[in-house]
Amino acid sequence: MSKYLNVKYYIETPESIKKTADLIAKMQSTGTWAGVKQETKKLVKKFGAKVKDIRILKQTKKIHLPTRAKNKNKINCAEIIISYPWENFGKNIAMLISTVAGEIYDLSELTAIKVIDILFPYDYLKLFKGPKFGLSGSRDTVKAYNRPLFGAITKPCVGLSAKEIAKLAYEVSFAGIDFIKDDELLADASYNSITDRTREVSKALKSVYEKTGKITMYAFNITDNPDKVLKLHDIAVKNGARAIMFNVLTGGFNTLNMLAEHTKVPIHCHRDFAVSTFRSPYIGITSYVFTKLTRLAGGDQIQCGGISGYLYEEDDEVLKSFDACLENFGNIKQSLPVSSGGMWAGKLPVNLRKIKHNDFLFLSGGGVFGHPAGGFGGVKSILSAYEAIKNGKKLEESNCPYLKKAIQKFGKVEY
Amino acid sequence: MSKYLNVKYYIETPESIKKTADLIAKMQSTGTWAGVKQETKKLVKKFGAKVKDIRILKQTKKIHLPTRAKNKNKINCAEIIISYPWENFGKNIAMLISTVAGEIYDLSELTAIKVIDILFPYDYLKLFKGPKFGLSGSRDTVKAYNRPLFGAITKPCVGLSAKEIAKLAYEVSFAGIDFIKDDELLADASYNSITDRTREVSKALKSVYEKTGKITMYAFNITDNPDKVLKLHDIAVKNGARAIMFNVLTGGFNTLNMLAEHTKVPIHCHRDFAVSTFRSPYIGITSYVFTKLTRLAGGDQIQCGGISGYLYEEDDEVLKSFDACLENFGNIKQSLPVSSGGMWAGKLPVNLRKIKHNDFLFLSGGGVFGHPAGGFGGVKSILSAYEAIKNGKKLEESNCPYLKKAIQKFGKVEY
Repeated sequence: MSKYLNVKYYIETPESIKKTADLIAKMQSTGTWAGVKQETKKLVKKFGAKVKDIRILKQTKKIHLPTRAKNKNKINCAEIIISYPWENFGKNIAMLISTVAGEIYDLSELTAIKVIDILFPYDYLKLFKGPKFGLSGSRDTVKAYNRPLFGAITKPCVGLSAKEIAKLAYEVSFAGIDFIKDDELLADASYNSITDRTREVSKALKSVYEKTGKITMYAFNITDNPDKVLKLHDIAVKNGARAIMFNVLTGGFNTLNMLAEHTKVPIHCHRDFAVSTFRSPYIGITSYVFTKLTRLAGGDQIQCGGISGYLYEEDDEVLKSFDACLENFGNIKQSLPVSSGGMWAGKLPVNLRKIKHNDFLFLSGGGVFGHPAGGFGGVKSILSAYEAIKNGKKLEESNCPYLKKAIQKFGKVEY
Repeated sequence: MSKYLNVKYYIETPESIKKTADLIAKMQSTGTWAGVKQETKKLVKKFGAKVKDIRILKQTKKIHLPTRAKNKNKINCAEIIISYPWENFGKNIAMLISTVAGEIYDLSELTAIKVIDILFPYDYLKLFKGPKFGLSGSRDTVKAYNRPLFGAITKPCVGLSAKEIAKLAYEVSFAGIDFIKDDELLADASYNSITDRTREVSKALKSVYEKTGKITMYAFNITDNPDKVLKLHDIAVKNGARAIMFNVLTGGFNTLNMLAEHTKVPIHCHRDFAVSTFRSPYIGITSYVFTKLTRLAGGDQIQCGGISGYLYEEDDEVLKSFDACLENFGNIKQSLPVSSGGMWAGKLPVNLRKIKHNDFLFLSGGGVFGHPAGGFGGVKSILSAYEAIKNGKKLEESNCPYLKKAIQKFGKVEY
């Protein structure tokens, strides 16, 4: 049985790499700056983190983070791997993060410290149940297979009443969308409560189903205090919700984990604030690590940024997060990766080309509801784009008037 | 009644500042990149965020964050203030953060985006109860007034049994310490559970009280899944705990908020992972903003970095976080600010000189338990240092053998 979890860091330091790697291992397990007599060899052997690997990279002269440290002429750079005994934190994602990505950020010896990867042994993964539904459960909910799922985000993000949202949901479900979600800015609002919204939207979606047979899942954002999260989940499910949504880092990883063990429907996960810890190459964790942790906590559908979208990330980084959703992860189910942020019909070809498979949710907000013919037209433009691609045609060759209008408004198709 | 919450940002962008400020206000409230017809004037008037102020700063040529944006020759810099209608998120710290510090970090138009301050109107603060005990309640618990509180962190951070921790607690309580806490790396561990630790430590502290009359509070780290957090709190309090501890960002702001409304004892708050969003000047939030949010959520005692310590922050930044604990905050009680990270007796003079008042917790880990005479000697060295300062003496003039030994081991006193 593997008792260690390996964490890969990128570090920069004016000190020696060896000394700094040792410091991290020490400070994040049994050590302290002063040394105490209770830190016996026996205790360190069992509970101490260890430097497992060091790969020296070339030096830099740049100081990438503010620091009290003096003597900063040459900065050493390296990738290092530290092994942590996972008994130190157990089945507790908050404590796992506090351990491997905690006070390290505070150390003045470091002028860059980025968690690049966490390698989980299967024995550790076994402590968790992961997503209850994941990729396959999300497909089963809407009975859509062998193609990407298509989704819409209700817009405007905030300010609509429950009935107005239900009207939008009706429109896009009727047009054939698989998935709809709240914007991450809307949760249980005073002017549009989860109780009202789940009731109105479910009624609208039921009516579409009765007319057309189309099943659409709507993910209601229930990010809130944890005791309320469980209540909102129960209200949503009772009112017919087929999915819920959660803002992971602001809402809390452990609340997600609790919710995942409780939920009766898939959980759609948003990253928002977490990007403040991804984006700098010199501090924080990567989106890849965040996505892994979200999957571990039980996120069924995970936002990964957007292929060729308006968000900052290069496509390769987005694809790494896709990997985190889909790669082998012991007993843990695959999550459904989501491409979002500036998506519209004309971005579908480049998404399919770069992603190279069908197992993702293509999610549009403005690209659906900003369509000149409204949400109905937006959905039709995307479905027609997919039809064209399946038939080996250019989107510009399609006869669909909604797709033509989308191209007119949103610009060039990306292949 | 003020319906707006004002947020101050530092931004850098290759675009015009005016356009970028408008984009932030739009994207974080009613807008989308594509424009939708439901975004009516009436809706924007009520729910839209507004640019309230712009202060242009000098341009830079440096690109401080990775971005897809092209055209990056000149980068415009500014401080801007955006006003958000707080009805959009209500009494929900997660949703507040997702709104004011959410998808902004994703925008490729920005090459720096830092939340510098959140200005809360009193009407918004009234939704929250804040710390139940705070500064004054923490003092009352240990009956210590008109002087700093002195605290110790049990070391080694991990690996000790409940009985071993109780032994350390006995030692430092007997020496006269006010406060003890778990390291942030230790919570409800399989080898040292909260049940065992609270029982053993409380027994030890009771025995000191019976012998000496000294009351010491020990903050037990109960960071865990939220349903378990409440149970661990109840176990701890039943076993005699006088404080608990919580890792704020990894454990979740809303879990802290729930816990604060439930707790029967003060909550000591650790920041660990949150530093990954403070440290770069170009992304994230400041420690000042984090401390304000922690106080709002109900943190009674808040770690603020250390004056002249080993952490990266300059003292001015630490003092800003102290302000966040103590400044006027409507109906919300003062929190107890904590100076920690490399503290020992010889750092007390510089702490008192820079902090300029007594309302803080001077917290040492290695500086207590790394003392040549162990925890007892460490505490005595700190208390003697305070005696010397009170009597207008240099620490080097003190006759206390423990203080002499501390200076021998830890180095120069800082005044």
